[in-house]
Order: sequence, then structure tokens, then C-alpha cells
Amino acid sequence: MEAEIITIGDELLIGQTIDTNSAYLGQQLGKIGISVSRKTAISDQENAILSAISESQSRVNILIVTGGLGPTKDDITKKTLCKYFDCGYRMDENVVNQLQKMFEKRGRVMLETNLVQANMPEACETLTNEVGTAPGMWFYKNNQVLISLPGVPGEVYHLMENQVIPKLQKEFNLPMVEHRTLVTVQKAESLLSRDLESFEASLPNNMGLAYLPSFNTVKLRLTQKVENISDISIDHYFKLLQQTIQEDVFCLEDIDPALHVSRYLIQQNISFSTAESCTGGWVAHRLMQAPGISGVYPGSIVAYSNEVKSKELGVPSHIFEEDGAVSEACSLAMADGVRKKFGVELGISTTGIAGPGGGTDKKPVGLVYIAVSYKENSMVKKFRMFGNREQIIQRSSNAALWMVKQILDLPTEILP
Amino acid sequence: MEAEIITIGDELLIGQTIDTNSAYLGQQLGKIGISVSRKTAISDQENAILSAISESQSRVNILIVTGGLGPTKDDITKKTLCKYFDCGYRMDENVVNQLQKMFEKRGRVMLETNLVQANMPEACETLTNEVGTAPGMWFYKNNQVLISLPGVPGEVYHLMENQVIPKLQKEFNLPMVEHRTLVTVQKAESLLSRDLESFEASLPNNMGLAYLPSFNTVKLRLTQKVENISDISIDHYFKLLQQTIQEDVFCLEDIDPALHVSRYLIQQNISFSTAESCTGGWVAHRLMQAPGISGVYPGSIVAYSNEVKSKELGVPSHIFEEDGAVSEACSLAMADGVRKKFGVELGISTTGIAGPGGGTDKKPVGLVYIAVSYKENSMVKKFRMFGNREQIIQRSSNAALWMVKQILDLPTEILP
Repeated sequence: MEAEIITIGDELLIGQTIDTNSAYLGQQLGKIGISVSRKTAISDQENAILSAISESQSRVNILIVTGGLGPTKDDITKKTLCKYFDCGYRMDENVVNQLQKMFEKRGRVMLETNLVQANMPEACETLTNEVGTAPGMWFYKNNQVLISLPGVPGEVYHLMENQVIPKLQKEFNLPMVEHRTLVTVQKAESLLSRDLESFEASLPNNMGLAYLPSFNTVKLRLTQKVENISDISIDHYFKLLQQTIQEDVFCLEDIDPALHVSRYLIQQNISFSTAESCTGGWVAHRLMQAPGISGVYPGSIVAYSNEVKSKELGVPSHIFEEDGAVSEACSLAMADGVRKKFGVELGISTTGIAGPGGGTDKKPVGLVYIAVSYKENSMVKKFRMFGNREQIIQRSSNAALWMVKQILDLPTEILP
Repeated sequence: MEAEIITIGDELLIGQTIDTNSAYLGQQLGKIGISVSRKTAISDQENAILSAISESQSRVNILIVTGGLGPTKDDITKKTLCKYFDCGYRMDENVVNQLQKMFEKRGRVMLETNLVQANMPEACETLTNEVGTAPGMWFYKNNQVLISLPGVPGEVYHLMENQVIPKLQKEFNLPMVEHRTLVTVQKAESLLSRDLESFEASLPNNMGLAYLPSFNTVKLRLTQKVENISDISIDHYFKLLQQTIQEDVFCLEDIDPALHVSRYLIQQNISFSTAESCTGGWVAHRLMQAPGISGVYPGSIVAYSNEVKSKELGVPSHIFEEDGAVSEACSLAMADGVRKKFGVELGISTTGIAGPGGGTDKKPVGLVYIAVSYKENSMVKKFRMFGNREQIIQRSSNAALWMVKQILDLPTEILP
């Protein structure tokens, strides 16, 4: 079963907003065996909306439309759908009640503009939105189900999970699409591709491997599409994939490698802290996303100035004079220093030049030293990162995770 | 002049990758008067690519295609374009030389798979890519210019700025689209819309106002499309807009409000630091994105545990006993404490419950106290944030910026 997604909003076309909704929708639909064959972004204009919707009719049975349901003038999706389905409005009393309750709970006054949200197209079934003011809508026309959702991400998640997914599963007899993903860190896509050449050649026709690089991580995604559950053979090939590039596998789940690391630290009760210069707290921020992290994480030091490096982390002054702040010695002293300061088992430090300014011939922009210190061991490595400031920070944080993997001998799978 | 964008890649459809390229492309094209009327994402399949490209022919004169130019098997854009333009390949010696240089510089061995990148369709003009291995391509067919770019964001930026934008400006006689954007923080979209009702009614036909909400910020974007430079009247209306919602304007540029704050701190030489519990360094991270921040920013403390709050920031133990760590008193003590610790003029603190666990009836998930301390003044406020963990952290950091605006009496415009 195939679906298309249409996102409505000038902000998407002129690039003021990055569309995260349709990525989420693709994931959720994929899980229930609906593959998204096309996503189209169009402007808040009646003609554009009508023609994009009509075109999709001949291609797919499921169309999800997001955006343009707000209370303001530039939101014209509901009006346009009334035209497309040739119907008028009805006031939905359930929506009115639910809006009143929501505004009461938030201690806000409900305005006339908010009440407009309860005015629903006669042709639709209302999908109750418990986390926002714009309800979803479910329509039928010529063998196509058209689902209209608001553009606010939290509301899309809520409506998909509670209303759309269950209704789609009831409505359609869905085939199966299976995905397995693993994540690698610090290995180039072209090198992985070389190592996987014969593996890729061995895949059956209904299976494919995709490379998804992002900074110095590459996600490898294996996909199989089958009609019957008995035809699924993806796990066999996923094991083969792991065996082929064993050394390079960071984790066997499609998650941020930082979450993988923090889950392990929580599970093994390994307390940690970070001392960050050029990454400015980014490593800590990525590591603290797991619920329960507070049990192993007291806090961090962002040590931007040399004064903070020496006063808070105990980096001896001769290091600044002899090696400079961007050096192996300083990085090691920072990792050790933060361990002592907070009394934790694992210390992670970064010091480098993220740019755009501050680089010299000897110490160019992109030069980063990263150290990890754990029990009696410590490791420090020098990196030359490419890209702009933000990219250098992101690459550095990935490199730090990779070093944590080395020193802790991190497993690729962490059972919950 | 209108353009369309086609992004190629299963990873976009199944939602494994969020498409940031097309937002960037929309911004860049908008600046030179080309409006993007449609963006389409399709899978790495020949048929899907060919039909999406053909369809666009009748609609627009400019088509930009991104993705599918990597060295791996799932990248089929180049092959498909050869089919569409009915041509063979030629080895481009310039690309070969440039690849060799790049690999030398990076100290890596060039593989056979990399050399495939120099094999270019005969029908295209090569767009040299100095930051990656896949060149861009420029084709003509039936009054349409088709530009193919790789999918890696950094390479897209490089190729657009150095090759595509100048060539498009030379090729077409472009009309003008003017945008003016301002950012508000801590005011609901529906309240803004109420305040702006008569302003919106007063706009001329060629002008529109869009609301772009994201957590507790709303960007307001005014757009005007004109044929002649003498018809531009957007600045008059942009001033009117500012006057109408004067109190709520945070900054008059389309930037992250954190960048606006950090530019002011650098310009006024106000040193600052953050003491963060529930936001875990996110406020510091947002504030350190401006080049030159190191002159006013020594570092930060992420104080997750009470022990760190008391040992590093000097929060007295009676506060934990009487008010708890999530309290006005603790937040104030943290902001003052970090000022003393680092000897800075402005201290910012956050303490709250970001969830998903840790909430109680009295102190529910989303309860956040934020304090700012500057010279003889300090301010503390209690917030109830909605959303998941990530959203609560983002909303809290925006609220902190808003408080910095209040205490510093931050201007809405900062001259460079």
C-alpha cells in the first residue's frame, strides 16, 4: 500500500521552516506497511492545494495533508478542502467542549478566533486533537482516504498515534515492509561501501541496502518488502551485514549513538562528566537525553577560557605555556580534572578550534583533541575535522562517543 | 520566476533523514527573486525520478534535483539523468585532477568507486565541487534548466553559492521578492493574530503576512512581490508591524533569538555565564554560536545534582530542605552563584523538571524556574512548559532569553 504526503505552507518553500513532520509520518506509516512514494510541499494557495491533491488521486489510495489549519488568515486548508469535497461547514459540539476544557486547564481566555477551529467541513469525520486547537479530518473520495492534520509537530504525533494509525490499520489490508538499521561512527561511506561490495551483491531482489551519512556517522539501512510473514529473511542478512563490518558497528538500533552510550552508562551505573572547550556542552547535552541519566550524571564544566580550565579543572599552567590549550596534554588534564572534581568514573574532554576565527598555520580551524579517562586508562586523540563551526562541533561530539566506545568496550546492543 | 525542487532518496520518504537542503535552497532562491512553488521528494527509483522530472517540465523553467549522487549502489541519479537526456558518459579530467588533490590533502587513498564520480553525462556542464567528491550538473531541455546537486548539505551550500546562484542570475531576468522578518518570544500566535487583525487588513494585494510558530517563539514574515524596484513598499509596512506589537518584538532579523542576545553581549562587552540544571547546557550552547563569544564567555556549570549545585554554585543546603531544588530560591542562588564563581556580570540559571519522569502533584513535569542576575538586579520567574522533554528544554531556553531581554533592556536591532 502506498501513500503520499502533501505539506502546505509557504514557510516550507521559502525555507523558513524545516519540515520534520513528513519524516515522522514516513517512519510511522512504514512501520504499518504503508510506504510513502512521494512527498510534495506546496504554498498556502487554493490552486496549488487543489491541483496537488487532485494529482495524487490517480497514484495512491492514502493521502496525508499537513499544515494550514491554524487560526490565522494564511491558513486556508480547511476552506480549500470544503471546496474539494464540495461541502459546507457544521459546528462540532465535541470540539467546542474540548477547546473550552483545554483553555480552562491552561488558564487562558478562549478567543473568537479559537472557536473557528470547531467549525468542521460536513464531509469529514473529526479526529479529536487533545493537545492542540486544530482537529484532524478524515475524508473519502474515489477510493482515496484523505487525512488532514495540523502542522504543529506535537499535534501530528498525537493524532497519528491515537487516531490515524489505528483507523488505517482497520481500513486497509496492509503488506509488510521490514527495516533493520545499524549505525557506524568514524568510518567513511566509501570505505564501508568497498567492504560491503560482495554483501550487497548477495542480497535477494526484494531487499536493498541504503547508506545514510551524517557528519562522521553512517547509518546502514536494510529494507525488505514481503507479502507474507513467512517470506521475511531480513534478520539473516542483517546478521551477515554485522559480521562483514564487525569492527565498525557502533550500535544495532536506529538511534542517536549518544543515546546508545548514555543507556549503557545508566545500565552499568558508570558515573560520568564532561569538560568541554570547543564543543561548549554539546557532548553533555547529547548524553543527557536518556531518562534516568541523573543517577550517573552530576553535571559538567564548559571550560571556554584558560582560567576556567586551570581553576575548575586543575590544568597546570605549564601546559598552556608549553603545549597550549589545544593540545594532547591539556585534553588529558581536562578529562582527568573533571573526574576528580565531580568524583566520577568516566571523564570526557574536548579542546580545539571550531572556528570560524582562531586558527593558525600550526593549529588550524578543525584541529580538535579529545580525551577519555576511565579507571586506570586514559586515551587521547588528535582529529582534523572538516566543515563549518557547527559541523566541527557535531563531528567532535561523534568522535568523543567513538572514543568512549573504545575505552569502555561498548557492546553494540544494549538490552533494556 | 518559479522553480521546483526534487529531492531523491528513500531515506527522506521513510523518514530516516530530515530534509534540510530544500529549506536552504528555498532561502537562497528567494533571495534572488526565484520562488519555489513546489518541492517533491521521491524514492531512488528510475521510474519515480523520470516521472517527477517530466511532470515539472510543464510547470517551471528551473528545476533543482538533489541527492542520489554518492558512490554507492543506491545512488542512481546520474544514470537516470543520462537516460532522461538521452546521452552517454565522458570522463571529466578536471574532476579527476580535483579528486586526486582532495584525497591527497585529506591523506586518504582514492578508491575505484571514487573515480566513478568523474564520469559525467555528456549532456551536462560540470559544476565543480571543491568540498566533496560528487560534482554538480547543469542541463537544458525544452526551456527548462535542470540542475543536479549532491545530497550532502555542505556540498549543496558550496555549489549553490559558488556556481548555481551566479549562473541563474546570468541566465534569467529575475523579478523581485522581498521578505522582512521579525521574531517574538513568549507570546501566543493567537494573541499576536488578534493584535494584528487591522494591520493585516491594511496590507496591499501584493503583500502577505505569515506566522511561523516554533515552541514559544513566533516569527512574523512579511512578503512582497514586485516587478520594479520602485514598487517596493515593504519597509513602510514592516515599520507599521513593529509599531503595532512593539512590546513583543524580540529582534528584527530572521535569526535565532539566542544569536541576537549573544551579539549584544559581545558588542556591549557584558561577560556572562550559565548555571543549568534541567536545560543541561542548552542555554549556553545556544548563546555560544556567535563568533567572538570567547571574549565575554569563560564557561558554564551544568549542575544536575544537588551536590554540584551546592559545591560549585554555593546554593545553601537549607534551600534544598525548605524549598527544594526546583524553586525560586534555588534558581536565584544558582544565578548569583555562577556570577561569583566566574566573576561575570550576567548570570542565567534554570532549574526544573524536564521529564518524562520526576514529576509530582506539587512539582509536575514542565515546572521550570529561571533566574537572571545582572549588576544590582535579579529576576526570577516560574513557568509551566508544555510538551515532551526536548520541547520543555527548548521552551525553557527561549524563556531564559526573554528574561535576559527584560533585565538588559535589549534593543530589537543590533548594528554590526
